[in-house]
Amino acid sequence: MDGQYDIGLIGLAVMGENLALNMANKGFQVAVYNRTVAKVDSFLQQKATGKPVGGAHSVAELISMLAKPRKILLMVKAGGPVDDMIAELVPHLEQGDIIIDGGNSFFADTRRRYEALKKQGIRFIGLGVSGGEEGALHGPSLMPGGDADAYGQVAPIFTTIAAQVANGSCCSYVGPDGAGHYVKMVHNGIEYGDMQLISEAYFIMKHALGLTAPELNAVFSNWNQGELNSYLIEITAEIFLQTDEQTGAPLVEIILDKAGQKGTGKWTSQSALELGVPTPTITEAVFARCMSAYKTERLAAAGILTGPSVRYDGSGEKFIQAIQDALYASKICSYAQGFALLKAAGEEYSWNLNYGDIALLWRGGCIIRAQFLDRINEAFRQDPKLPNLLLDPFFRDVLARVQSNWRLVVKVCKELGIPTPAFSASLDYYDSYRQAVLPANLLQAQRDYFGAHTYERSDRQGIFHTEWLKK
Amino acid sequence: MDGQYDIGLIGLAVMGENLALNMANKGFQVAVYNRTVAKVDSFLQQKATGKPVGGAHSVAELISMLAKPRKILLMVKAGGPVDDMIAELVPHLEQGDIIIDGGNSFFADTRRRYEALKKQGIRFIGLGVSGGEEGALHGPSLMPGGDADAYGQVAPIFTTIAAQVANGSCCSYVGPDGAGHYVKMVHNGIEYGDMQLISEAYFIMKHALGLTAPELNAVFSNWNQGELNSYLIEITAEIFLQTDEQTGAPLVEIILDKAGQKGTGKWTSQSALELGVPTPTITEAVFARCMSAYKTERLAAAGILTGPSVRYDGSGEKFIQAIQDALYASKICSYAQGFALLKAAGEEYSWNLNYGDIALLWRGGCIIRAQFLDRINEAFRQDPKLPNLLLDPFFRDVLARVQSNWRLVVKVCKELGIPTPAFSASLDYYDSYRQAVLPANLLQAQRDYFGAHTYERSDRQGIFHTEWLKK
Repeated sequence: MDGQYDIGLIGLAVMGENLALNMANKGFQVAVYNRTVAKVDSFLQQKATGKPVGGAHSVAELISMLAKPRKILLMVKAGGPVDDMIAELVPHLEQGDIIIDGGNSFFADTRRRYEALKKQGIRFIGLGVSGGEEGALHGPSLMPGGDADAYGQVAPIFTTIAAQVANGSCCSYVGPDGAGHYVKMVHNGIEYGDMQLISEAYFIMKHALGLTAPELNAVFSNWNQGELNSYLIEITAEIFLQTDEQTGAPLVEIILDKAGQKGTGKWTSQSALELGVPTPTITEAVFARCMSAYKTERLAAAGILTGPSVRYDGSGEKFIQAIQDALYASKICSYAQGFALLKAAGEEYSWNLNYGDIALLWRGGCIIRAQFLDRINEAFRQDPKLPNLLLDPFFRDVLARVQSNWRLVVKVCKELGIPTPAFSASLDYYDSYRQAVLPANLLQAQRDYFGAHTYERSDRQGIFHTEWLKK
Repeated sequence: MDGQYDIGLIGLAVMGENLALNMANKGFQVAVYNRTVAKVDSFLQQKATGKPVGGAHSVAELISMLAKPRKILLMVKAGGPVDDMIAELVPHLEQGDIIIDGGNSFFADTRRRYEALKKQGIRFIGLGVSGGEEGALHGPSLMPGGDADAYGQVAPIFTTIAAQVANGSCCSYVGPDGAGHYVKMVHNGIEYGDMQLISEAYFIMKHALGLTAPELNAVFSNWNQGELNSYLIEITAEIFLQTDEQTGAPLVEIILDKAGQKGTGKWTSQSALELGVPTPTITEAVFARCMSAYKTERLAAAGILTGPSVRYDGSGEKFIQAIQDALYASKICSYAQGFALLKAAGEEYSWNLNYGDIALLWRGGCIIRAQFLDRINEAFRQDPKLPNLLLDPFFRDVLARVQSNWRLVVKVCKELGIPTPAFSASLDYYDSYRQAVLPANLLQAQRDYFGAHTYERSDRQGIFHTEWLKK
């Protein structure tokens, strides 16, 4: 029996609800199902009232409501629940039907599911979704990967509901099997980096310069007018205006300094390690969240471990300018790492990624959206094979211009004992990347000395081993 | 049929051969087998001549040669070959026989094999082995984990062939299932950290101070007399004395600066991310090896990316002293991270690790052996529940004493554009760990703003969410 609904959606948590509403608001007929079926009814009776949304009380009913080839978007918890739901769906499907996983699935799981479903004639799309609740409702950034033909069938829906920017829709086909979820994962790794860098800038201004919340609002508002213009800088400025109702203090100062870290940021760093791609800024951002969770130990350590005075004596105004430059330079390094990781993953998994297009996918709808991404798009448009963003003339010139301020900030913070793990890691990344010769020659000598691991020479080809003089 | 041989060994690559010879030299009867059986004959006819070593040309023959319960040490390549060999062995074994995996297996594989073999009545030991070829022959550090009773049966052999130090043998039972291989993995992560920190010290002295190889030999020889006394500092000093036969130049300067990184160092960082334990020094060491592998890109970048002059203008003698202090302080942070990781893993996997004993296991035989480990043993002897090495009074005082020099070195290197990722990460680790309040409060505000992720408050219990003022 053929149904009339354009698409089915399973999983009515907030992201699922909002994507369903977004599609319905754009005129698509959406059939929804949720394992706890009461949720289906309440959704229909409340948020979805008057919209082209139909409810199903079983998987079989949902399937019967859909036009063929059926398109079913899963918005269920990543991991086992996705496998469970796929297993439940498959017996009801026909050759050529399309399952789309819109959760934060690990890309290797998406690769596995893609292959398994392909054998059964079911087409699979791993869809990265960014933008939080509001993005889901009003226009998210969508990163679809998997079966290209199947994407063609859902593209009219997804390109319509995605965020729209000057260059078009923030949805385009990323690449085969797990490519979409991988790109979403790296987006989140970069988001971790952005958030940590902003937090460090805040921490420096608060401690070294003693800036108050209104002053911090003014600084970030000002930064949002310039090169750093982005969603995260904008909301950071606004955060400093929020007052705590109970105490009257700035709310941000009342919030406990303990952040969660499980998930996509961690995966980004683990994948970078797997592929041998240095991503120190992103990884320090993940570790900073881990460190924040050691609250009890830190409280004890604060009374035991000594450090210098944190107050900066120089000109506050100039130092704020220097921090802005340091943030910009560090951000460039963080994105350079993220794109270098995409490059390595694209080669490892044969995805043929278009880095410029990926930058545009993130131009709207998602958390890291920023004007800055147009520059990255431009860099890859001029040289699609650019090995690293740092080598692009525009970014090279920025780094040349701001680096003395960047060095100043890191130096001052190391002198004052202010932790800046992501600023430091970014600067060391820059300084490492531009070395024709790094000290790994000594490391190779050590490995050959104690383990006969052999080495290469800089003056000719070959693999060498030395019988080292040993005392 | 009962055989007479004390132990069987499978896999006659260099580590397997040397462990067999080590056991034979200590009077144990060793039966050996290798998949390519010609290797068995050549080993018997050459290196093992006149020693209590017997050769087997099949697994069945090997098993028939062993006293019961049989003890079989696998020295085959980690991964699939270990599973293959176990599968081949099991049909020949009886209840209570013991398989020992002496390779660099991933600890999760060891956990899986331990459980699978337990169901079949076979006892399994995952044995970490460190010390390279020479250690294997003359006395390695051995880190056995798995079946405790089975360890009792092999302990007479392993404690005899291990390195011997003042406090006893560098072999003692670590904990259940994969604990031995985990501890070996962390040993290697720490080894990565040590090697990277030494390489950075060398790089600074070479570039900022222009030290020659003989001068570097003198510096490292001098350092080896003090707090930094260790095997790696000792061999580093010796490396600078080695001359290249072809060019007459110091050999280390001819060796290509490209290091390999696959394996245990990477796993250490990946596990740290999994468990949420910050290990930035170790991870920067892994990333530094990755970065070294980007040789072609770096050669291009060196001509494109600008930086300051690398020459240091101050007193060379004082700066060398400061580098020594920075190396020592960074090393303390690296070990603090490694032991914090062991603590988290011990809790996660219910291993009940004894951190002080682990420090002593590494006191001899292995690559990171150093007097320094006695201090770590002492710290955990005084407080077995010490949350972090930085909080130990001895290390706290060292860090208080050397930190101004440590800060100086990092500051100067950031000013001169000399990459010191592991020095920087160590200092930021120290400065982060001693903060009662980190800037994660802003990060939590951002997450609640864009994703309604909720937050905790510093002034009372509970989970909170704010409807943020939004423009």
